[in-house]
Amino acid sequence: MDKICVLFSGGKDSSLSAILLSPFFEVELVTFSFGITDSWIHAQESARAIGFPWRKLKLKRDLLERAVEMIISDGFPRNGINLIHRNAIEIASEKYTYIADGVRRDDISPKLTEREISSIESRLNISYISPLAGYSRKAVDHLAKSYFIIEEGKSENMKKGDYEDEIRAFIRNRLSEELIYEVFPSHIQSRVIALKGEWKWARKP
Amino acid sequence: MDKICVLFSGGKDSSLSAILLSPFFEVELVTFSFGITDSWIHAQESARAIGFPWRKLKLKRDLLERAVEMIISDGFPRNGINLIHRNAIEIASEKYTYIADGVRRDDISPKLTEREISSIESRLNISYISPLAGYSRKAVDHLAKSYFIIEEGKSENMKKGDYEDEIRAFIRNRLSEELIYEVFPSHIQSRVIALKGEWKWARKP
Repeated sequence: MDKICVLFSGGKDSSLSAILLSPFFEVELVTFSFGITDSWIHAQESARAIGFPWRKLKLKRDLLERAVEMIISDGFPRNGINLIHRNAIEIASEKYTYIADGVRRDDISPKLTEREISSIESRLNISYISPLAGYSRKAVDHLAKSYFIIEEGKSENMKKGDYEDEIRAFIRNRLSEELIYEVFPSHIQSRVIALKGEWKWARKP
Repeated sequence: MDKICVLFSGGKDSSLSAILLSPFFEVELVTFSFGITDSWIHAQESARAIGFPWRKLKLKRDLLERAVEMIISDGFPRNGINLIHRNAIEIASEKYTYIADGVRRDDISPKLTEREISSIESRLNISYISPLAGYSRKAVDHLAKSYFIIEEGKSENMKKGDYEDEIRAFIRNRLSEELIYEVFPSHIQSRVIALKGEWKWARKP
């Protein structure tokens, strides 16, 4: 089996992505961190809960600064988050040939266009796979409920290892608390805290 | 496990789609036929080769007539094939709540837009899943080669159970042989003839 790296936040989407790939690839979870907060710890805990090897990789602070500038100037986070995501894939490509994430059909960001994907795949000589891209939120929720015990909460309170947590912290520290609420609409986020029942492919041997 | 119907031609894409779903759903393969040719037999053989239950469902002749009219008037097959595909999903929805196909990220047709998918899902109260939608052709080819023994050939010579075979036959019988070559660009198609090695999830108990 080929090794695949799944960009992992600890949420139900990236967790389900790992599960769906696990019978066909040797899954390794990777969480990216700018070193601003320790939110990666929550991703590490979720990784342990679903039983895959996990590692942390670093993103540079100047990337975060560029992304935040973009988010503030746009007034919405999509382009800034996609910029970070493309950089994360690029860094992962130094170690992996197959790189996956938890992007769904109806996701807004991170979500690369077909053109961006083709360009990244040929430039970095990787295969980029989004196993949930052909699934709706409803189907993902249904499968996630069968396999995981999930904690859900508003994005501003959830402890998870996604880009948003560090972007929020950066804006809070450098700029202002209010600005966060202007650019990030509050939404429900999830974190996987345990595996349900017998999910044998997801368990380490 | 929930039952899922995979729209199945016997080619490597729909075969791989079935394999990728099989650890998570109870897979049943469905091949649609207008009753013009017996090309469904080749899909049945491929279904047997990969070890999933298979059935044939009927499409109406007047749908084929409408699709062919559209293809001839457009000068290319995309819209006609998508019309047939949407109808196939609708007929499958009478028996199944989860309906899947082998559509890839870089496919042209059949391929529904996000809007068409949302509309179909809510109108028919189904989940429509394209497990390969987040995969490129390169990644699909790589996985298919690991699991299947595949026969490849030009579309006009391949015996497989897809819509194209019957559309070609209909145009040949009703209109002219030359017209086929005008509207259908020749392309390479595949048919799965055997399962490689030990693929335990794909085999019947």
